[in-house]
Amino acid sequence: MSRTEGEVLAAIEKRRRRPHYKLMDEMITLSHGAGGRSSHVLVETLFARAFENPLLAPLADAAVLEVGSERLAFSTDAFVVKPLVFPGGDIGDLAVNGTINDLAMAGAVPLALSAAFVIEEGFPTKDLAAIAESMGEAAAAAGVPIATGDTKVVERGGADGLFICSTGVGRIPDGVVLGAQRIRPGDRVIVSGTIGDHGMAVMVARGDLELEVDLESDTAALHEVAAALLGAAGEGVRCMRDPTRGGVATVLNELAMAAEVGITIDEDALPVRPQTMGACEILGIDPLYVANEGKLLAIVAPGVADELLALLRAHPLGADAAIIGEVRPEPPGMVILNTSFGGSRVVDMLAGDPLPRIC
Amino acid sequence: MSRTEGEVLAAIEKRRRRPHYKLMDEMITLSHGAGGRSSHVLVETLFARAFENPLLAPLADAAVLEVGSERLAFSTDAFVVKPLVFPGGDIGDLAVNGTINDLAMAGAVPLALSAAFVIEEGFPTKDLAAIAESMGEAAAAAGVPIATGDTKVVERGGADGLFICSTGVGRIPDGVVLGAQRIRPGDRVIVSGTIGDHGMAVMVARGDLELEVDLESDTAALHEVAAALLGAAGEGVRCMRDPTRGGVATVLNELAMAAEVGITIDEDALPVRPQTMGACEILGIDPLYVANEGKLLAIVAPGVADELLALLRAHPLGADAAIIGEVRPEPPGMVILNTSFGGSRVVDMLAGDPLPRIC
Repeated sequence: MSRTEGEVLAAIEKRRRRPHYKLMDEMITLSHGAGGRSSHVLVETLFARAFENPLLAPLADAAVLEVGSERLAFSTDAFVVKPLVFPGGDIGDLAVNGTINDLAMAGAVPLALSAAFVIEEGFPTKDLAAIAESMGEAAAAAGVPIATGDTKVVERGGADGLFICSTGVGRIPDGVVLGAQRIRPGDRVIVSGTIGDHGMAVMVARGDLELEVDLESDTAALHEVAAALLGAAGEGVRCMRDPTRGGVATVLNELAMAAEVGITIDEDALPVRPQTMGACEILGIDPLYVANEGKLLAIVAPGVADELLALLRAHPLGADAAIIGEVRPEPPGMVILNTSFGGSRVVDMLAGDPLPRIC
Repeated sequence: MSRTEGEVLAAIEKRRRRPHYKLMDEMITLSHGAGGRSSHVLVETLFARAFENPLLAPLADAAVLEVGSERLAFSTDAFVVKPLVFPGGDIGDLAVNGTINDLAMAGAVPLALSAAFVIEEGFPTKDLAAIAESMGEAAAAAGVPIATGDTKVVERGGADGLFICSTGVGRIPDGVVLGAQRIRPGDRVIVSGTIGDHGMAVMVARGDLELEVDLESDTAALHEVAAALLGAAGEGVRCMRDPTRGGVATVLNELAMAAEVGITIDEDALPVRPQTMGACEILGIDPLYVANEGKLLAIVAPGVADELLALLRAHPLGADAAIIGEVRPEPPGMVILNTSFGGSRVVDMLAGDPLPRIC
């Protein structure tokens, strides 16, 4: 997929001419839930307009609420992963860790979670109990209580087993300011470990591929790692994101667009497990677009990058951390991959949904 | 359904001998989501044990979080109402108002909501836009922004159109302390208006009944009414609850059990619209068990009951308010209805689910 410089420039021009918002489709498709371009169009043209208010406007993973002298992070997720149980986790710990991570990426100390269940009539009680146990254990391990909940049941055929919505509230410590607006040319892009493991583990668990690969989801709560980065580098951490649906490629595109900078990443620097890469190759999917559930991307000032990399590598959740790229002034709003073969190509946001119901 | 005093006493004895928790069923049934006895067993034996923590322990509609010197209310709801649009509202304003009401019943000033959507592939975009508009309008009318959200899409047949999970955060003003533990014998029970309208409007809208009745859901945000009651009577308001799933009967049973008091209500005092009563009679359902989405129950000190009743009746959302009963020392944990025919009967919690997917 390497291209000449001329081809890359042509791709950049083509991308620039594309209208930012396409007309909406008449019906909702799986790609509207995939976290990529269609999701963005849906959120920006439909929900953001209908709900218009200053708190929602940043469209970040967590909103920031001011209550008295406190700043709170507030974030919600719906989980529809299929199958409900997969190597390395299940929908329960995924919901707990996923919402903790959204709060952590806002720089918040998670305070409490809520959990709402939509259950299909006939769902085995013992399976529900196992998933609830898994949630309870993940919450206890993270030190974040599930403080409130709700349960609804729909008739057989009205839902596919079980969906969980988790919402979290966290406290943002004084002095913590994170956001794409703080990104500057020269900043480094760090990923906390191997990419694509969650999405590929779920795909393999689904059994459609008839693959036997030893792959586990990376589901994990990142609030302690995130706090360690902020504690070590303070304002040197510009922005953090967890690359879930849409993967690293989509998150970096969002950041590049929001900050109006270019982001260059090096294919050789991307940490990918061989078995994840193997599964990706069989499916024809680029691991840059595959969901992670226990990894963070941090955009950091160049002067602190090596220190933060060492800090991550010393942590069990960051052993495979790597500096994968750099922020450039050009081309604004775009992500460019320097390939292993010495070429470069534009890395766009996820289009379509190659991996439905991955989280 | 009137009984002699002896029969009532026998019913009380039988109820007392019943084990508090039945063994769990092997499979989840619609009644586990109906808000009545099965829901309680599910929550108390499965979720509360798996998630065990002090914030969840009260099992109230909203949890109370302490953040610095602030007290926050935190509440979540899943909405699976069918049909999605019904006279008087739709799943969108129902979700907004329902979550605002849970915060309001905790005495909180709602600050922000989140909304997570699970959408079935093929759902018409214009229907989603209409529901989002309805949510936006309800949120704007209530002055409570939808600050964050999430969207997931499942394949055709994986969900029934659309589910919405809404979660809210509110600030509990200094000095506000509400809860079943504050209920005392002699307290009065006030309902803010006619009961059963939401549940019956949804049932009629479903079309199964072939009824043509002019019935509208009462969906409304009660935070201003609740604040007015607290402003007028302060600690004279012991406890507030919105009687949604399971209806007035189930909420009063919960309060009677939590406070270890008896609650006596007068059938003649219950405000019920004639058309709601008519639909209930055709279905053989007691309006005491039918969901409301814009009504509150307040347990208040006897000295402030008349003043609060007058306040409610002067408010557009409380025109049909009534004092419907009284708290007694006996029989603890039970609700007794004095019937129109001069008899009395035990009013138990909802068992089963006569009206599935009502909210």
